[in-house]
Amino acid sequence: MEKNIAVIWGDCSSPEIVKQTIRVLDKVAEKYGHTFHYTDAAMGGEAIDKYGDPLPQHELDKCLAADSVLLGAVGGPKWEGLPGEQRPEKGLLRLRAGMGLYSNNRPAKIWPQLAPASPLKPEIVAQGIDFIIVRELIGGVYFGNHETHTLENGEKQAIDSMPYSEHEIERIGRIGFETAQKRRKKLCCVDKANVLDTSRLWRSVMHRLQAEYPDVEYSEMFVDNCAMQIVKNPAQFDVIVTENMFGDILSDEASMITGSIGMIPSSSLGDGTRGLYEPIHGSAPDIAGKDIVNPTACILSAAMMLRYSFGMAEEADAIENAVNKVLDKGLRTADNMSEGCTCLGCTAMGDAILAEI
Amino acid sequence: MEKNIAVIWGDCSSPEIVKQTIRVLDKVAEKYGHTFHYTDAAMGGEAIDKYGDPLPQHELDKCLAADSVLLGAVGGPKWEGLPGEQRPEKGLLRLRAGMGLYSNNRPAKIWPQLAPASPLKPEIVAQGIDFIIVRELIGGVYFGNHETHTLENGEKQAIDSMPYSEHEIERIGRIGFETAQKRRKKLCCVDKANVLDTSRLWRSVMHRLQAEYPDVEYSEMFVDNCAMQIVKNPAQFDVIVTENMFGDILSDEASMITGSIGMIPSSSLGDGTRGLYEPIHGSAPDIAGKDIVNPTACILSAAMMLRYSFGMAEEADAIENAVNKVLDKGLRTADNMSEGCTCLGCTAMGDAILAEI
Ligand SMILES: CC(C)[C@H](C(=O)O)[C@@H](O)C(=O)O
Ligand SMILES: CC(C)[C@H](C(=O)O)[C@@H](O)C(=O)O
Repeated sequence: MEKNIAVIWGDCSSPEIVKQTIRVLDKVAEKYGHTFHYTDAAMGGEAIDKYGDPLPQHELDKCLAADSVLLGAVGGPKWEGLPGEQRPEKGLLRLRAGMGLYSNNRPAKIWPQLAPASPLKPEIVAQGIDFIIVRELIGGVYFGNHETHTLENGEKQAIDSMPYSEHEIERIGRIGFETAQKRRKKLCCVDKANVLDTSRLWRSVMHRLQAEYPDVEYSEMFVDNCAMQIVKNPAQFDVIVTENMFGDILSDEASMITGSIGMIPSSSLGDGTRGLYEPIHGSAPDIAGKDIVNPTACILSAAMMLRYSFGMAEEADAIENAVNKVLDKGLRTADNMSEGCTCLGCTAMGDAILAEI
Repeated sequence: MEKNIAVIWGDCSSPEIVKQTIRVLDKVAEKYGHTFHYTDAAMGGEAIDKYGDPLPQHELDKCLAADSVLLGAVGGPKWEGLPGEQRPEKGLLRLRAGMGLYSNNRPAKIWPQLAPASPLKPEIVAQGIDFIIVRELIGGVYFGNHETHTLENGEKQAIDSMPYSEHEIERIGRIGFETAQKRRKKLCCVDKANVLDTSRLWRSVMHRLQAEYPDVEYSEMFVDNCAMQIVKNPAQFDVIVTENMFGDILSDEASMITGSIGMIPSSSLGDGTRGLYEPIHGSAPDIAGKDIVNPTACILSAAMMLRYSFGMAEEADAIENAVNKVLDKGLRTADNMSEGCTCLGCTAMGDAILAEI
């Protein structure tokens, strides 16, 4: 197969992980007889520096023209003082919206080899951590109206609004149910229905959908309780579906309990097969240029791209198995080091994974 | 001293914990020569059953006429099907607003005797967990406009709005700084300033205040990162100040890492000394009527009331020390049981704490 991949190299230490990921993709292409064409697209800090805009239309167009998009991570101290509209994050939000990527899939899965790195007690980890947060990605308070105005008494007031309409809930709700059908068939909808109208609308749509997925055990949980349960008893979860902001918070919490945030990929999809694939970690400015950042989450994001956008399951397995073997050999980057393991830099970790494919 | 305390007995297992708390208050009154007058006020499920309204004005008036309010916990399955305005939680929200309680103080502190119950690894617990979340309680998306309407295309849309004005931020910001001044002098403001206008307004107000509290080390963190850090490295926090919804989620997460949510009290205060004191746990419907619920969080809430509303520091210490001694003796309620300890019911735990005062 021939595929066009738009590559957003990202900021700070991000280009280092993207570089290793492309090496891995090339190896897969060679081994399985595919051709991957790469088109660089600028987004985030790089785009601000080049074009004064975190995502100019011509760069978004490159992403829309590709079969899928690979992203490292954007942002860094250099761009932190900028006003809202010109910040790197705004480029990411506009990319998600511009590509129509309403469904963000964030797995929280423990690699057995890294289990000791979890901040949770071994008894809890032993019960298993393997769930997915399906986060709505282009609605809610992220994309509602944001305004700041001056009140009559002279003080400033800001208002962020959190809108959700039925079709936005329905399409992500279906992804939640379908994801659960492919797994252990448990779906938990997380919200704050005791306070928010949007949550109550979520529940009413979910109840309607529920009838169509009778094989899925459906439950509901308040977001504050969920923040507790993820720490107390993560084994209870299979698939969580939730709105954008709650998904942001809970998926970060969930990634942390795996103990290895440098290992967690994510996919963002819309109606077609074109997706955006990125690690859930940030651009790690503090270690940029040192060749010590962990490229694995980005490499695993590429594996997700092969699986979900290109239908290349075997190729995706090959990458994931390679990562598994590397871990079995006790090879680690600095963020995951533990006694008896060998510490590799970013390039050397890329080499190690390549060697197993 | 003579003090009037409005008592909201609450729903499900709540009256059981309130009963033990009043016994403790009476013992303190006797020992230190105070007189506490109690006035029952109905709120939540009880008020719905009696008056068809989770907080009728006459019950709110009782709270406003008192020197302070003691609350168990409200809600339960019986009232769950009701429409938003008539739910028990709405009574709580209206009570907070009606009393002007903008500052909710939620300590996350580990009792050394219960440290093994933390879901976190001993290495992390050993570094110490002792921080406070100062949560803004009567602003933001909890109290913004909530609406659900039908769009032109026939589908429903809900919108929740999250407003904050400068004076609302300033008054809670000051509580944050002042709380930090009395402790380890570190304040972290948690927000989502890369997305929300309200968060950016928070930051601008906090920056202004910062100049007035030069002895406090001030920092900022995104809410998603904070959800990770609470699990990864809770020892880094002293005082966290944050808006209502983020405070709800993070304080529940924080309570869970202590391993003993049945031990955590909270205070809610406004401009005067009149406060609302309540455990952070819920009404535990599943164990109602069994005399096994843990009364300690409610008893410790009463201690906070003595300290913060009545200026009775010695009396508050007496209660907290009594709880400490009871734990030292290996006495536990079912929720905190571990090997070698003695399991007590709710009344027996009340007895045990009383005996140490
Ligand atoms: C950078 C930020 C806007 C973004 C978000 O909040 O969605 C990030 O935290 C994420 O989760 O991908
Ligand atoms: C019952 C609910 C409305 C309430 C809240 O969200 O504030 C509760 O979760 C709390 O934290 O006190």
